[in-house]
Amino acid sequence: MSKVFVNIGLSLDGYMAPEGMTMGRPEYKNWGAKWGAMMAWILNQRYFREKLLKLDGGETGPVNDLVRHTAERSGANIMGKRMFDQGESAWPEEAPFHTPVYVLTHQKREPWVRPGGTTFHFVNDGPERALELARESAGSRDIRISGGADVIQQYLNLGVVDELEIALAPVLFGSGRRLFENLHEPGPAFRIDRVLDDPAATHLRYVRQ
Amino acid sequence: MSKVFVNIGLSLDGYMAPEGMTMGRPEYKNWGAKWGAMMAWILNQRYFREKLLKLDGGETGPVNDLVRHTAERSGANIMGKRMFDQGESAWPEEAPFHTPVYVLTHQKREPWVRPGGTTFHFVNDGPERALELARESAGSRDIRISGGADVIQQYLNLGVVDELEIALAPVLFGSGRRLFENLHEPGPAFRIDRVLDDPAATHLRYVRQ
Repeated sequence: MSKVFVNIGLSLDGYMAPEGMTMGRPEYKNWGAKWGAMMAWILNQRYFREKLLKLDGGETGPVNDLVRHTAERSGANIMGKRMFDQGESAWPEEAPFHTPVYVLTHQKREPWVRPGGTTFHFVNDGPERALELARESAGSRDIRISGGADVIQQYLNLGVVDELEIALAPVLFGSGRRLFENLHEPGPAFRIDRVLDDPAATHLRYVRQ
Repeated sequence: MSKVFVNIGLSLDGYMAPEGMTMGRPEYKNWGAKWGAMMAWILNQRYFREKLLKLDGGETGPVNDLVRHTAERSGANIMGKRMFDQGESAWPEEAPFHTPVYVLTHQKREPWVRPGGTTFHFVNDGPERALELARESAGSRDIRISGGADVIQQYLNLGVVDELEIALAPVLFGSGRRLFENLHEPGPAFRIDRVLDDPAATHLRYVRQ
């Protein structure tokens, strides 16, 4: 069966996003520089450069393999409405998912089909229904809970996250949106599956026990 | 010159201590089990067993080397009054520091000398004065900011923490005392110095840039 996984960048102090993160205003509360520092590890990876930045070159080591694997294993994405809203104005026409994307929202809206295989479906019936739909469309591939933090928290609390992959960057944000908040107790139990050491970020992989 | 360092266990969700941690009542809010799960990595290390538990046996690999190195490099400790109060009732007569310990407090109290080389000094003049005293007594050895979280935050905000060593355990507390809180912006800048991978915890070492 498909795995449900999270794969995110995280600041050392536990934030997925710096305070004030708003597309089009990277200078606001300096969020653009902070977010860029957190995600610096991915910007020079060949797969990312080729697929998202349409640039040549870049690193081809184990971190690049990890980035490619994350993209290739994904058969469906689930995200929150805030993340979608931010992306709607920021993603290129060919949105960087290439799978069905289930957006958790109260808004009713027809599916939005983008070139390159990304179709956004707007789900009004909650995270469990979105996961059902994602499972149906993912086939043998896996389901990525893309974000934001509140959506990942909802799926952690449902106990359905099989794999938690964190690129822990050596940056301190001081404020922003924390990944780990609002978790019910007892929370889900994970074990360390693999650690990939790299100067730009520590790639931690946890698997549900 | 002596380095100022932090070496702590941390839950995956960023807590140094679970909610409700009170000595003598390990069942309260289940804190004893949670804390034990976070610190499981150290309990079977030979150095820790020998020195603190007065037991034979235990692991002798790189994690054990790390535990020994942390103890041997420490020429002075600095801690908060809450940590001291908890420890005063929980430490054995031979308190596990074997150095001068500077306790940040408003309380006036004569130094408290314990067998085995630990003397607690009660400092009423703030964290910078405590660090001066610690530097004087540490000689060529290093100064450990022992905790709790609020004291570590004060020294991070002073910009004097040279090395931040975190044993990141794969446990979620859900609530408690966060390590990273109340940091001023811009916060201190660290780089990844070393990652030691182990099934029980990921040993992350950051050095100030």
